[in-house]
Amino acid sequence: MKKNSPLYGVKPQVLEVPAYTLHAYEAPIRLHQNENPYDFPAELKEETLRRFRQRQWSRYPDFVPDSLRLRLAEFAGWHKDGVLLGNGSNELLQATLTVLVKSRTRVAIPFPTFTVYRLIARILGAKVIDIPLDPDMSYNVGELIAKSQESGAGVLILNNPNNPTGSAIREEDLARILQQFSGYVLLDEAYYEFCGRTGLGFLADYPQLIITRTFSKAMGMAGLRVGYLLAHSDLAAQISKAKLPYNINQFSLTAAEVALENVARFRPAIEAVLREKERLGRELGRIPGLKVYPSESNFFLIEVPVAPRVLFEGLIAQGILVRDVSSYPMLAKCLRVSVGTEQENNRLLSALRASLTADAGSAREAK
Amino acid sequence: MKKNSPLYGVKPQVLEVPAYTLHAYEAPIRLHQNENPYDFPAELKEETLRRFRQRQWSRYPDFVPDSLRLRLAEFAGWHKDGVLLGNGSNELLQATLTVLVKSRTRVAIPFPTFTVYRLIARILGAKVIDIPLDPDMSYNVGELIAKSQESGAGVLILNNPNNPTGSAIREEDLARILQQFSGYVLLDEAYYEFCGRTGLGFLADYPQLIITRTFSKAMGMAGLRVGYLLAHSDLAAQISKAKLPYNINQFSLTAAEVALENVARFRPAIEAVLREKERLGRELGRIPGLKVYPSESNFFLIEVPVAPRVLFEGLIAQGILVRDVSSYPMLAKCLRVSVGTEQENNRLLSALRASLTADAGSAREAK
Repeated sequence: MKKNSPLYGVKPQVLEVPAYTLHAYEAPIRLHQNENPYDFPAELKEETLRRFRQRQWSRYPDFVPDSLRLRLAEFAGWHKDGVLLGNGSNELLQATLTVLVKSRTRVAIPFPTFTVYRLIARILGAKVIDIPLDPDMSYNVGELIAKSQESGAGVLILNNPNNPTGSAIREEDLARILQQFSGYVLLDEAYYEFCGRTGLGFLADYPQLIITRTFSKAMGMAGLRVGYLLAHSDLAAQISKAKLPYNINQFSLTAAEVALENVARFRPAIEAVLREKERLGRELGRIPGLKVYPSESNFFLIEVPVAPRVLFEGLIAQGILVRDVSSYPMLAKCLRVSVGTEQENNRLLSALRASLTADAGSAREAK
Repeated sequence: MKKNSPLYGVKPQVLEVPAYTLHAYEAPIRLHQNENPYDFPAELKEETLRRFRQRQWSRYPDFVPDSLRLRLAEFAGWHKDGVLLGNGSNELLQATLTVLVKSRTRVAIPFPTFTVYRLIARILGAKVIDIPLDPDMSYNVGELIAKSQESGAGVLILNNPNNPTGSAIREEDLARILQQFSGYVLLDEAYYEFCGRTGLGFLADYPQLIITRTFSKAMGMAGLRVGYLLAHSDLAAQISKAKLPYNINQFSLTAAEVALENVARFRPAIEAVLREKERLGRELGRIPGLKVYPSESNFFLIEVPVAPRVLFEGLIAQGILVRDVSSYPMLAKCLRVSVGTEQENNRLLSALRASLTADAGSAREAK
């Protein structure tokens, strides 16, 4: 590349990586981002706004939100020095890989999974070792350990439960991984509250384990970007060096503080999502031709009997946005749908029934 | 390092870098972070809170805040595709270095300057080439070019005006640097509005130039973390890959939107700061034994005739927090003071006069 090109010094692996872009579709029913359909509780919104109005916005956020870290530590059940706060858990994943990825580090990542892992790892210069899930989208733990170990991976990233498949790893399998794999295990528990499984119990014995979680899903704070990390305190101190000072803005810190003072207030929404999840899963399973993968999270991977893109667009025309995951490896026939409110789920079910019946009809006509 | 240590796989350069920590001192008069002493305007606060109250906090921020980018592009005088928004300009500096720093990349950084540059560069694995300012704290442009060029630096980071010295580079000197240095020039214009000098006019002709700015200072939004970057659109697209999706939370996006709809509203505070800056500089210069370095920003570097740490603590005892920069290279005798409101500056001046007179007195007594 010639020197007067603006790209002459850009790392080759950055040039090679496709950008993470999402076309911004608009629809009133938004079941495409695994968000909590119930908003941050109204009275907690008011309390957050009230506290923040009184602050000087022109002042930097608290440098180390120590009281928040302490409260979060109590909430999470881990000690304060092993807790880090981030601008969403993605920032903490990035910081972790920044301190662990050297020029020849291999990072093992199962697929299909959340695409940002691969993006971050590659941009930081890692070689990614792709390990497929089983055809039923469950984790093949033996394969995971064997391939991570054989490839000499320094880090294994696990999303538990996994997005976009909903698959989860059982605690005993996680134990096997931690015992047999010699690198770091970065366990993203973004959907933890919908599943209940956690690696927390292994943190004390396995200092190579790093857990990330988020306030974006169960706590209804996706718009505010607050994530946290749990790890051995020595490791947390190193990861912290790759986080920028003042990485969480003061408004989000305030909202997180209010949320942590009122954790019980989030329980009803989580329970409503879990109830609706059971019902939605059952009803989806009754739609002819549609296959639902088992999910331990607040979304479902569904395999559809028509071109996913066509169905996706048909749903948008009916005001419903889902995620087209058909470009992911192994998911050529799939869409992902988030669990919404009862009404939203009913609209989704009706629209799917109508689309698939109409489609079956037109398919018959075309013959 | 043995394998069961939590740090066995951490990059050596991360282990070597000291953490960026600030002891959280408390005092009512806060002249230690170069913040705008005038808050985000009250009616714009209300408008931001009003807009944000209506949103669902449980939804992710807009993926590409395109309307905001467009408005920002008009505000900055650059085209939209060359504009990126970040979680503070630090995030954009980090993203830029992430895409440019390869395993042997050298990053030239003048000193003394903002310490975060060095921290980010080293954590990303760069070798830092330190280039001193002249003893009067001005940029020695010939030296800067020669040392950057000789060392084969891939990137030169310039803070203009420079924190903590207040020194600025003139446009003609910047032109020389761009003509003669063959790497990327990362120009941090965080304090641009207090100085007026900018590299913007060179962007079209020099695709290796990258400019970062912030809403934290002149716009009174330090608590909200909004920065932006201006660069060639091809380069911006690559840098964007190293930014995480949803890197700015929705509240800060809303505040930035409100700010950009009301840019004229920030002028009076900037002018008040500039007026007070002139007065504070003049008055500081009249305090016997105190040396004021010329500043083109909203703070002053001062050389004091006593141990800076002792004076720093004496000021805290009087309710005034300044920045002790005496551990920076070349600044063993210095403190940095931000320009506050008229009243705050008067308090600072009185406290300095009292401290230095008392100290001179006790020094005489000790003889």
